[in-house]
Amino acid sequence: ETWQPSAQPWEDTAWTWPPQPRSKRIPQSPSARLSQPTEEQASVQHGGRGHETGSKSIDRRLFCERLVCLVLSDCIARVQRFLVTRLGEDWIFLVMLGITMALVSWTMDYASAKSLQAYKWIHGELKGNIPLQFLAWVSYPLMFILFSSLFCHLVAPQAIGSGIPELKTILRGVVLKEYLTLKAFVAKVLGLTLALGSGMPVGKEGPFVHIASICAAVLSRFMSFFSGVYQNPYCYTDILTVGCAVGVGCCFGTPLGGVLFSIEVTSTYFAVRNYWRGYFAATFSAFIFRVFSVFNKDAVTITALFRTNFRMDFPFDLQELPAFAIIGISCGFLGAFFVYLNRQVVLFMRRPNAMTRFLTRHRLIFPAVVTLVIATLTFPPGFGQFMAGELMPRECINSLFDNFTWTKISGSPLPVGLGRSAAWLHPDVSVFIILLLFFVMKFWMSAVATTMPIPSGAFMPVFILGAAFGRLVGEIMATLFPHGIVFDGILYRIIPGGYAVIGAAALTGAVTHTVSTAVICFELTGQISHILPMMVAVILANMVAQGLQPSLYDSIIQVKKLPYLPELGFGHMSQYNIFVEDIMVRKVKFISSQSTYREVKLLLDSSSLKSIPLVDSRDSMILLGSVDRLELLALCDWWLSPERRLLMRDFPRHESDADLAPYSLLQITAWEEKEMDKPMEIDEIRVDPSPFQLVERTSLHKTHTLFSLLGLSHAYVTSIGKLVGVVALKELQKAIEGSTRSGVRLRPPLASFRDISNHNSVPKPPPSSPTSPSAPASTPPPSPPTPTACLLEATPS
Amino acid sequence: ETWQPSAQPWEDTAWTWPPQPRSKRIPQSPSARLSQPTEEQASVQHGGRGHETGSKSIDRRLFCERLVCLVLSDCIARVQRFLVTRLGEDWIFLVMLGITMALVSWTMDYASAKSLQAYKWIHGELKGNIPLQFLAWVSYPLMFILFSSLFCHLVAPQAIGSGIPELKTILRGVVLKEYLTLKAFVAKVLGLTLALGSGMPVGKEGPFVHIASICAAVLSRFMSFFSGVYQNPYCYTDILTVGCAVGVGCCFGTPLGGVLFSIEVTSTYFAVRNYWRGYFAATFSAFIFRVFSVFNKDAVTITALFRTNFRMDFPFDLQELPAFAIIGISCGFLGAFFVYLNRQVVLFMRRPNAMTRFLTRHRLIFPAVVTLVIATLTFPPGFGQFMAGELMPRECINSLFDNFTWTKISGSPLPVGLGRSAAWLHPDVSVFIILLLFFVMKFWMSAVATTMPIPSGAFMPVFILGAAFGRLVGEIMATLFPHGIVFDGILYRIIPGGYAVIGAAALTGAVTHTVSTAVICFELTGQISHILPMMVAVILANMVAQGLQPSLYDSIIQVKKLPYLPELGFGHMSQYNIFVEDIMVRKVKFISSQSTYREVKLLLDSSSLKSIPLVDSRDSMILLGSVDRLELLALCDWWLSPERRLLMRDFPRHESDADLAPYSLLQITAWEEKEMDKPMEIDEIRVDPSPFQLVERTSLHKTHTLFSLLGLSHAYVTSIGKLVGVVALKELQKAIEGSTRSGVRLRPPLASFRDISNHNSVPKPPPSSPTSPSAPASTPPPSPPTPTACLLEATPS
Repeated sequence: ETWQPSAQPWEDTAWTWPPQPRSKRIPQSPSARLSQPTEEQASVQHGGRGHETGSKSIDRRLFCERLVCLVLSDCIARVQRFLVTRLGEDWIFLVMLGITMALVSWTMDYASAKSLQAYKWIHGELKGNIPLQFLAWVSYPLMFILFSSLFCHLVAPQAIGSGIPELKTILRGVVLKEYLTLKAFVAKVLGLTLALGSGMPVGKEGPFVHIASICAAVLSRFMSFFSGVYQNPYCYTDILTVGCAVGVGCCFGTPLGGVLFSIEVTSTYFAVRNYWRGYFAATFSAFIFRVFSVFNKDAVTITALFRTNFRMDFPFDLQELPAFAIIGISCGFLGAFFVYLNRQVVLFMRRPNAMTRFLTRHRLIFPAVVTLVIATLTFPPGFGQFMAGELMPRECINSLFDNFTWTKISGSPLPVGLGRSAAWLHPDVSVFIILLLFFVMKFWMSAVATTMPIPSGAFMPVFILGAAFGRLVGEIMATLFPHGIVFDGILYRIIPGGYAVIGAAALTGAVTHTVSTAVICFELTGQISHILPMMVAVILANMVAQGLQPSLYDSIIQVKKLPYLPELGFGHMSQYNIFVEDIMVRKVKFISSQSTYREVKLLLDSSSLKSIPLVDSRDSMILLGSVDRLELLALCDWWLSPERRLLMRDFPRHESDADLAPYSLLQITAWEEKEMDKPMEIDEIRVDPSPFQLVERTSLHKTHTLFSLLGLSHAYVTSIGKLVGVVALKELQKAIEGSTRSGVRLRPPLASFRDISNHNSVPKPPPSSPTSPSAPASTPPPSPPTPTACLLEATPS
Repeated sequence: ETWQPSAQPWEDTAWTWPPQPRSKRIPQSPSARLSQPTEEQASVQHGGRGHETGSKSIDRRLFCERLVCLVLSDCIARVQRFLVTRLGEDWIFLVMLGITMALVSWTMDYASAKSLQAYKWIHGELKGNIPLQFLAWVSYPLMFILFSSLFCHLVAPQAIGSGIPELKTILRGVVLKEYLTLKAFVAKVLGLTLALGSGMPVGKEGPFVHIASICAAVLSRFMSFFSGVYQNPYCYTDILTVGCAVGVGCCFGTPLGGVLFSIEVTSTYFAVRNYWRGYFAATFSAFIFRVFSVFNKDAVTITALFRTNFRMDFPFDLQELPAFAIIGISCGFLGAFFVYLNRQVVLFMRRPNAMTRFLTRHRLIFPAVVTLVIATLTFPPGFGQFMAGELMPRECINSLFDNFTWTKISGSPLPVGLGRSAAWLHPDVSVFIILLLFFVMKFWMSAVATTMPIPSGAFMPVFILGAAFGRLVGEIMATLFPHGIVFDGILYRIIPGGYAVIGAAALTGAVTHTVSTAVICFELTGQISHILPMMVAVILANMVAQGLQPSLYDSIIQVKKLPYLPELGFGHMSQYNIFVEDIMVRKVKFISSQSTYREVKLLLDSSSLKSIPLVDSRDSMILLGSVDRLELLALCDWWLSPERRLLMRDFPRHESDADLAPYSLLQITAWEEKEMDKPMEIDEIRVDPSPFQLVERTSLHKTHTLFSLLGLSHAYVTSIGKLVGVVALKELQKAIEGSTRSGVRLRPPLASFRDISNHNSVPKPPPSSPTSPSAPASTPPPSPPTPTACLLEATPS
């Protein structure tokens, strides 16, 4: 979790000054380099040489040969130029990204499916020998998980976990070190394949977003060979956004839901341009992904991954709606609880005590214990028989979405086509108990398993949980109305599978705070008949969950202490009543054009600011711009460097660096002391002439919008050109959390400062009094508030 | 088409200065007013009065009575406060918007359906009497269209047309006059109902977006009674965005597609927060909309509007994909042609010649002629029999999406369940001819009909066209492979209905430049089985159409000359190579703190700028802020006003305004002349201290992003605080269109200026030379370009 709050594309590279010749830094696109001039040069060469030749016949042959050569090379150059220009185009990038990710997704699915097949085969072969069977059942996933954990730890610890929280942070403009490297890619792909192949309740979606983003980042580096556009820092966000969309889209072959999910999860403001590009890449990717499975005879043609076969003509009745609403609301609570549980597990593991210290030293013990416990509990001949332990994640979903009503088939000989759903039917135990046990056990298992130090997502486990919960409600409904619901004289049976689909969408929606899970569900099941009740359930689940807990990804961001900006709720009046002046830091560290090197050095030593504001003078405080920390460091270093000392010729020239005698060291110190008191050469450094500025009365709402739109990390507060304060992400974060956590505090304590300062500033004399930079110059006195209002505002509730 | 380029929420109200007490302008939320203090006051009153009473028994009764009174009033106040706070909440607004729009949508559908029923009934009753039948067939829609046109013209001309282009402009930050009023609402609802009821090929979607937005705007004004949030100008965009989503969503009961379509069509950057709110409102609205139809027994339960019944197990084969791709590409070309045709019709009508002048004077002639021609051509016993003329729009869609293969049933007795699809089968003419005729005739009819001066959208007509085209391809495929496609030894029939669905999505996608039409199609048909081929077709159609023509809405924006900002393509290197300094206007009109009233007056008379930059002095050119035009006008007016003249006591006091003698008029002029030469009192006016600023080297890409993110209309270009230029929407527009229309011009002619000025600025002396504001101060000389590079750059290709 190392991060530097740096490299804001908006701040650093973009508004750099003095205007460097941009084309120097961004190599010109090859097409520009190759165009027109090449031909001109060629023809000039040709003409020149052609006239030089003397004797005729040899000349003519030579000339012809050369002509052919030139024509050929010209042709080749043209083709090459054409290819390079074309290959640099955006859609090529998108197609390549799509194909790569489809290949990766399919290969991973194939490998993990084979692994699970082997797992079940071993389990089946050993039937009869319970101890050996148990050993195999437990050791197989243990081996996989341990190897995955070890591999990630050794190759790239960045590969651990989901990846969505980190990507959200990266898209926010923060650079996370080593996060989008080929190493992380390899570790994540291999680690995830192993984790999925172990049969543990871990998901593919989150890590896949990370994998796709790495793929996009690496590919863009490759593409920059063809087109300079890809080297542009602005492009980075565009590339990663598409990467996210492709990641979700080709994970399950759900392009639509993938794009929407990635938007909801990773962005605050979204460029519609990227939406289109995301669609293109995700569709292509999902298409190839499904075509692979057709070629592999997994499927007959391109259909949904977990296809359902509910009746179309009358999917549900209006009278079933209360049940759907109950599923939605319950899933909201359950989702919030899942997030809470997950966070508590992580926090517990991070609490410094003897046990966690021990676990940190021996990294493999925690995943080993978790795997051991989960595998033991799901052992089919053991406790697993009461919780359908033998079903692997995908089998779970397929069976939970099936078209049967399980409560009706218990007892009688099993109907044809039931398939793996038989695992849910125990001769002695009711289906309800099994479903409930499955739900409760898998609930904590999923919450714990996703904290293991392996690449693991929570989407799929939560999806299964939701499906189980929905199925439970559906089966209860089917028992309550055994003959179905009568409408218009016709009897309609209840389909518990439909409830399962709705439950799955609602719970994943609640945990991730998204509504696009409904779309993912349609695409996964291939049926859209339940669209309206599902949307209603997902929205209800979201309403409940958003009120109780942050989303799972935000929760991880908070736990990992990544920089983030909380969302502003809609309609809180306070966001319009709090102004920047209430939250800004008034004691700004700055350099002026008269600052000495000593002052600069002191400032640099005492703070870790990435950029430092430059003002005209200490008195006027007119903001001229901001200077990069590195720039200042380099300047200071050079100022006291031996090279400069030699240049300045303060010392005799024959003294080389090698033989500095002690007496000269004293001299050096004296020289340095003297030099340190000289004013800084402001002309030597690059100044960003327009760092982002706000005025004191910018509202919290607007500040938040600007920070999230432009991905700012800080902004200076000015009053007619005078620097009066600075607001960083931290202040904003504090202000928002202070004002929204309580939800009702309409005048937060911070805001009361303003009233006082306002009262003070009323009688102040007019403009340009540089002593009080916070008092707005030339204020026409605001009409004084009535005494009552004054009283009300002065007493914070 | 009146518009003022004003009221940028980001620019005017937001950064106003001096800091007005914001709470004065935005009334505090009632909850803030009502909270805590009310109770305190109550208890103070109570305590105070309680102690005042003298004699005991009466006192006690009085005291008790008062206590009860106070407790009661306190209770009432609490309940009231609670209600008011709750009612002001966002979700109440969303629910109310949803219900209202569902009601409007359903009522309109109901009324227009009844009207069409009546139309067909009349037509049926008059069977046998061809002349009378023709008269009825023609006069019925004529009456409706004429009334609709007249009503809109009289009540609110803003109601004419689609509404999406205008809303796109409004959401861009431009204020269109009288566009979101109750009058426009009434005109649009009534006009649209009449238009839909006439059976003309006009759609509901575009106008419905407008209706929903008006509804949202009006509702928010109503809600501001409960919560001050709604009065905030920032809120406006949030409200309208949701309005758009609800409009599309409840138009056909497609919440998902509705939200996505409205995002794609209206926004450039989208706040994910609004996405969630849009979902909520649109789902609720669509839900209620469908529930109405269940109550009305139109449908048995909540299902899709144009439900299809394709087989689920094997919806299509991979070998059919080329056909789907062909549909996509053809639809791309057809869509572009539709936009072109539509624009040509509008432009023709606007060309100033005798005919158009005549038509403008007699507004009803154009719609009358169009209706007459269309109705005549579709007259079922006449030419209409060769183009399924008797089918009303919705019947068209239902029959085109049906499950039969028409080429196979021609000749034999019609199968059961064919229903209205029988209209496509002519005893003598092939289905292909009828489909082709239908497509060609409806194509130009739709393009012309949507230009009539009535509320009309183009989505539905285009949808029908696409369905017809897809069906045509499907029927051809079914003829080419009469026995279906063999795969894995099993024979699969081709479903022409599936082709129709894909064609509909692709053509609407091409015309509107969106991909969410695919989602709308799923929701309309209730089947998602064709998701991947449909996405592929829609994306191909988009690729083709976007390369050829602007979207229909952008086309209308351009024709109507509404202010807009063209999209920047991805990957054009030029957007990074062009800088603000290349496109900015260098001759900026400004006022300085030394400007006299005469200068200000002259400036105001000579320009129509909405805000004028204020600089420190003519020499320094340091930008202090910008001043609103109205502010300056008011100041000038007051400066020369009789009131001030009296105040100044330049004239004897007994002279009243009433009896100004001519000689005093001379005096007045003299006084005014004198006053005009005084320097302006800069302290008297409100200055916006931070108008949006850019630096010269801001790239075109970034400028575009900032303008579209923040909805700017102009920005000042500064160089270390000095004003050097201004960029307005117009310049940006010109620059983008100049650089992208050709598509290959990597160094546009404008950029060559920069090279020259750069060459000049190289030898210039270092900092703070105020004479050349455009030359960057303290430039470390850029490494001089090599002669070749120089040559290349100086010769624009």
